[in-house]
Amino acid sequence: MSRHILTILLLLTIAAAAPGQPRPSMLLSEGDVRLMRASLGTAPLFDAAVADAKRRVDAAIAAPMDVPVPADAGGYTHERHKQNYTEMQLAGVLFQLTRERRYADFVRTMLLKYAALYPSLGRHPSAAGEAHGRLFWQSLNETVWLVNVAQAYDCVYDAVPAADRTVIERDLLRPMVKFFTVEQSSVLNRIHNHGSWMAASVGMAGFALRDTAMVSAALYGTGDAPGGYLRLLDGLFSPDGYYTEGAYYIRYAIMPFFVFAKAVDNNRPGLRIFAYRDSVLKRAFNAMLQLTYTTGQFLPFNDALKEKSYRSPEVITALNIAYATFGAEPSLLTVAKEQGSVTLTGGGCLAAKGLAATSLLPPFPYRSLELRDGPQGERGGIGILRHGGNDDQLLLLMKYTGHGLSHGHYDKLSLMMYDQQREQLQDYGAARFINVEPKYGGRYLPETKSFAMQTIAHNTVTVDERSHFGGDIALSERFSGTRHFFDAGTGTTAAMSARCNDAVPGVRMQRTVVTIADPSLPKPLAVDLFRVVSDREHTYDLPFYYIGQFLAMNQRLTQYTERQEALGTAPGYRHLWKEAEGRAQGMVQFTWLSGNRYYSVSSAADTGTTVCRVRIGANDPNINLRREPAVILRTRGTSALFASVIEPHGLWDGTIEISRDAASGIAGVTVLASTDEGSVVRLDRKNGKGWTVMVANGAADAGRQRSVTAGGTTYRWTGNYAVTVN
Amino acid sequence: MSRHILTILLLLTIAAAAPGQPRPSMLLSEGDVRLMRASLGTAPLFDAAVADAKRRVDAAIAAPMDVPVPADAGGYTHERHKQNYTEMQLAGVLFQLTRERRYADFVRTMLLKYAALYPSLGRHPSAAGEAHGRLFWQSLNETVWLVNVAQAYDCVYDAVPAADRTVIERDLLRPMVKFFTVEQSSVLNRIHNHGSWMAASVGMAGFALRDTAMVSAALYGTGDAPGGYLRLLDGLFSPDGYYTEGAYYIRYAIMPFFVFAKAVDNNRPGLRIFAYRDSVLKRAFNAMLQLTYTTGQFLPFNDALKEKSYRSPEVITALNIAYATFGAEPSLLTVAKEQGSVTLTGGGCLAAKGLAATSLLPPFPYRSLELRDGPQGERGGIGILRHGGNDDQLLLLMKYTGHGLSHGHYDKLSLMMYDQQREQLQDYGAARFINVEPKYGGRYLPETKSFAMQTIAHNTVTVDERSHFGGDIALSERFSGTRHFFDAGTGTTAAMSARCNDAVPGVRMQRTVVTIADPSLPKPLAVDLFRVVSDREHTYDLPFYYIGQFLAMNQRLTQYTERQEALGTAPGYRHLWKEAEGRAQGMVQFTWLSGNRYYSVSSAADTGTTVCRVRIGANDPNINLRREPAVILRTRGTSALFASVIEPHGLWDGTIEISRDAASGIAGVTVLASTDEGSVVRLDRKNGKGWTVMVANGAADAGRQRSVTAGGTTYRWTGNYAVTVN
Repeated sequence: MSRHILTILLLLTIAAAAPGQPRPSMLLSEGDVRLMRASLGTAPLFDAAVADAKRRVDAAIAAPMDVPVPADAGGYTHERHKQNYTEMQLAGVLFQLTRERRYADFVRTMLLKYAALYPSLGRHPSAAGEAHGRLFWQSLNETVWLVNVAQAYDCVYDAVPAADRTVIERDLLRPMVKFFTVEQSSVLNRIHNHGSWMAASVGMAGFALRDTAMVSAALYGTGDAPGGYLRLLDGLFSPDGYYTEGAYYIRYAIMPFFVFAKAVDNNRPGLRIFAYRDSVLKRAFNAMLQLTYTTGQFLPFNDALKEKSYRSPEVITALNIAYATFGAEPSLLTVAKEQGSVTLTGGGCLAAKGLAATSLLPPFPYRSLELRDGPQGERGGIGILRHGGNDDQLLLLMKYTGHGLSHGHYDKLSLMMYDQQREQLQDYGAARFINVEPKYGGRYLPETKSFAMQTIAHNTVTVDERSHFGGDIALSERFSGTRHFFDAGTGTTAAMSARCNDAVPGVRMQRTVVTIADPSLPKPLAVDLFRVVSDREHTYDLPFYYIGQFLAMNQRLTQYTERQEALGTAPGYRHLWKEAEGRAQGMVQFTWLSGNRYYSVSSAADTGTTVCRVRIGANDPNINLRREPAVILRTRGTSALFASVIEPHGLWDGTIEISRDAASGIAGVTVLASTDEGSVVRLDRKNGKGWTVMVANGAADAGRQRSVTAGGTTYRWTGNYAVTVN
Repeated sequence: MSRHILTILLLLTIAAAAPGQPRPSMLLSEGDVRLMRASLGTAPLFDAAVADAKRRVDAAIAAPMDVPVPADAGGYTHERHKQNYTEMQLAGVLFQLTRERRYADFVRTMLLKYAALYPSLGRHPSAAGEAHGRLFWQSLNETVWLVNVAQAYDCVYDAVPAADRTVIERDLLRPMVKFFTVEQSSVLNRIHNHGSWMAASVGMAGFALRDTAMVSAALYGTGDAPGGYLRLLDGLFSPDGYYTEGAYYIRYAIMPFFVFAKAVDNNRPGLRIFAYRDSVLKRAFNAMLQLTYTTGQFLPFNDALKEKSYRSPEVITALNIAYATFGAEPSLLTVAKEQGSVTLTGGGCLAAKGLAATSLLPPFPYRSLELRDGPQGERGGIGILRHGGNDDQLLLLMKYTGHGLSHGHYDKLSLMMYDQQREQLQDYGAARFINVEPKYGGRYLPETKSFAMQTIAHNTVTVDERSHFGGDIALSERFSGTRHFFDAGTGTTAAMSARCNDAVPGVRMQRTVVTIADPSLPKPLAVDLFRVVSDREHTYDLPFYYIGQFLAMNQRLTQYTERQEALGTAPGYRHLWKEAEGRAQGMVQFTWLSGNRYYSVSSAADTGTTVCRVRIGANDPNINLRREPAVILRTRGTSALFASVIEPHGLWDGTIEISRDAASGIAGVTVLASTDEGSVVRLDRKNGKGWTVMVANGAADAGRQRSVTAGGTTYRWTGNYAVTVN
């Protein structure tokens, strides 16, 4: 096995590394310290970081030191231990920068306090679930503590008397590592972001303590189970660098991956960790940034909080390392400028110097791309189509990845749309107010499972009111979506298409999104064809969770205006209020206003189509969910093609009271054919023009001749899709 | 009568004015044109305005000219006629600046087209109501048209052949003025913002045509009814410059008032219009800016759209005139910079030059102040307490004005709160999407009357589910709130108190808001005492329309989570969904999260208090209302004192995952006394400290000794209110 041989080679490399490596050697090397000292006064952002660290640590030194007995999961003791590790980490760096003894003493004194406390701690009183901690309610926070403390200890090591070091290592660091590697070995050996933090913490403690066994445990896991850092790099990332938990969690996981990689690189340069697996860390970093919108916010599929952006401290840390490691890429300075701060590292110093030396920064090079999921890229992926500059970019995202571990949602083929620096068709994300104690201690709220994860919470088809895979994570983990084709486009059209035949037994699903850019349109249209095929009759529900002010719909609905009830009792459905409902009379078209633009969705419909206006919030006594609306198209039958045009249009400016083209420009959406060979849809515009959109439903082949016959007409095109102007 | 004598003197002044005044003489004087020409290339904002005007007008000259037959109230013909007057006005200025004949020709040709069209027009086909127009659905737009066209005509007058001038005046300008002054004389003579535009348009046409009778009609109205510009200045503004319709409408009305004042000043300098009535125009301008929050947004009481700010074109126009007229005030440049553009006027040029010459602008001097309403300041007013710098200012506003004409709301003693650059306790404003055709043609939506105007839509007390004055505007117009006292404060406390004894027969209402700034608090607390007194039993409802994410409430309520109904059938009530309801068990405390801070309202309650969580949106089939929440305190009895603490607290930052003090610091709110002499309330903090707040309910007198005895204890203080630390 080539992997086995590689493992042996790596072990040899590690065994050969010098045990007497000069300190510091974690995030900082001796060379980094020289660079940082020499750069003081030349790079404003770096100087600001130094000043900020001094302010914080000097204040900490001046204040009473507190290492409290752990008591809560988001209150004072929790926050205090977080504050303590941050202050120790900064004090360690400041000691290296200034050689002022008081910084080393601060770390030493606090570590001795922790060493006095730690042996007395058992399971944290607020612990819930298996991966409990001692200092913190979950071991995850505790590994973060150790990642920081290992750095601090490494920085001040030479200034701590040997007797104190013995106490610190014997009563604090080694017991904690033992707690992780023995009691919590299931976390260390698990393919999950918690594992990455644990591997990093154990490995960095290992480097700090010059303990080769700890480093081995970190890199390769413990016992017979596969695990450890390298297995995580193999298993959590695809060849495109896509992290299987998605955009929100790579933001978090990028930190341990990069911090530990940097420590490995400093201590075991022969391992060439940044080149490992065809530079998967670099690919992961680039994929992470491509998974943000132009505002810097992470695209919030799976469990995600929408406030998170590339301004998060984890991303700042990773970016600084990336900037120093992968070459001084100017577009990273663009992001660094938005971040507004740098870390106290060699990379942070270089980025700050780069910013100080550069007056004109390039826009960040967002592009249309597909990111495959799965270790071999075999588990579907994410398709992203972008159009327009970074100041007003239309973005469409389709998700057809694997499940995404414990934070994944049942949302195969779900669609999101952004425009004008904001969401227009939303993914709900997760229900959580992070660290907000009155909201379930700041943890994930129950409505994450009961609503946000469920299929009906997403812009995709729910069949018979049951979530994909029946909402069974074990089942969902076994399957993924399948890419059909992806065309980033060059001129007027672009497209992405994917399938899922496993989410609902006996139902094949294929979604294709084609964008049409036309000089007569302010923004491209998105043509959305969601095809469901089955031998048996089903109910198919497709919601559009629009964000903005509802303006109008062209249907007469029964309005539940004086009394309203939940849409149903099924998972997800019970959290939706049914505001209005009715049978469609022809094409269903509704319009909302968001920012300075109007948006319409126009969908082919027949008398078998029901339209429902809903709003999130039923069965939510604690108001854990946002009261946001959707329009649901429902149809019953064996097979169906939901054919919709999503159309940004017009202009509204309340300041100067201008409104133009508030009405959709679409006069009709007609399904001409929907067979296993292909789907053909005609779009009629109010100006008398229009398009015919043809999509191959058979095997993808960009060069293949296609033909579909329906209603006595044969439609022919070449390739996976085509758009003709009527 | 001194007013009569003044009128005669004014008429004499006008009669004495030179009929051969050099042109231009409306917004621009000959001196302004010289200044503007000499300044080209020296003031970037002014150059940008010139370039923008050239781009617009050159494009208009290059395109087919269209003067369409009026057909709609917010569609193409409406927008086209608006575009036409703007282009003519700009072309006139450009002719003065460049002397390029094509600009004059453009105005001449278009005016001749209008002259050919206008005589054929009757009542506009989309007209609704009395004040209909011919070119536009309402005469209001038509007067705006004339204000602009009079300027354009004046600018190009000397370049238009006499024969064309005859046609333009005979077939267009004079018939339009006649339409206004004869058919629509009720508007001209009405004390209302529509009257101000009409007066300005007739007066400016009069100056352009050198027609003294027109100018007289504009200044003094027509016939025997009082009206015209000077009566509007007398009747619509208070001695403090408060405009009786409120903040939103002064934004609009400031334009005709200032534009016409400038034209009067250019043509009749002897009138000293800017000094008229103790400089009421300057007072009005300053009051207008003080009625914005630090974001520049107008405080949205009465009918108001929240997107409106001092960036509106009307305010830019007024500010440029104010800057040139009242002295070059640096803080006006601060606003000009936020506005980001200047007008093509002498004042616009001076402001742009001022901005170009100033590197450090002072913050706009927002302050706590009371603005009295009514011609003699006798009709209550607006109290505004502010605390903190312009980057994070706490603002509390209480409204106790007169009704405010047709756009007034039934909201005596209503309260609004802003903090962190956003609303925290909102006034709904109006239900309207301005110019958005699918929303009722962009007009006020019916829900403005059925909800937004009603008392229950406001943070004030509704008695027996009936709006103040029974929702009868004629009755409401007869009364106003009454100031009790206002103390902008100097140190730790500030207060405002007002009464209304007429809104509900037999019920006296008094609201007092006291702010307490304390070094231990991140922001001041607001203590809100709303006292209602009656001989008969009533139901009293006090809502708090908070904006943000609901976090928690300390009461066990019956939750309507699977089915919900409207709160009631009374006006306003039928638009509220009842989400939850229950009897209070002790102090009612609820908390929300908004931006980076928490907010709690803690209210004294007894077992007679009912708490209701509601959400706007029932009986709203077209989703014309925003789905926003409130908590309503309800009590039944003869008299009551709603005693609440409104408390900004803590810190939340999702980017760095920090949460502090998410729980309220208030442990108790206890009413110790509530008599006709005074109210005494004790506030207990969780830290064991607290305050006692004492408010005089008798006559205001800042020096008077007060005492209130209740429960065997006598409370003594001096002045209108006092706060003691427990």
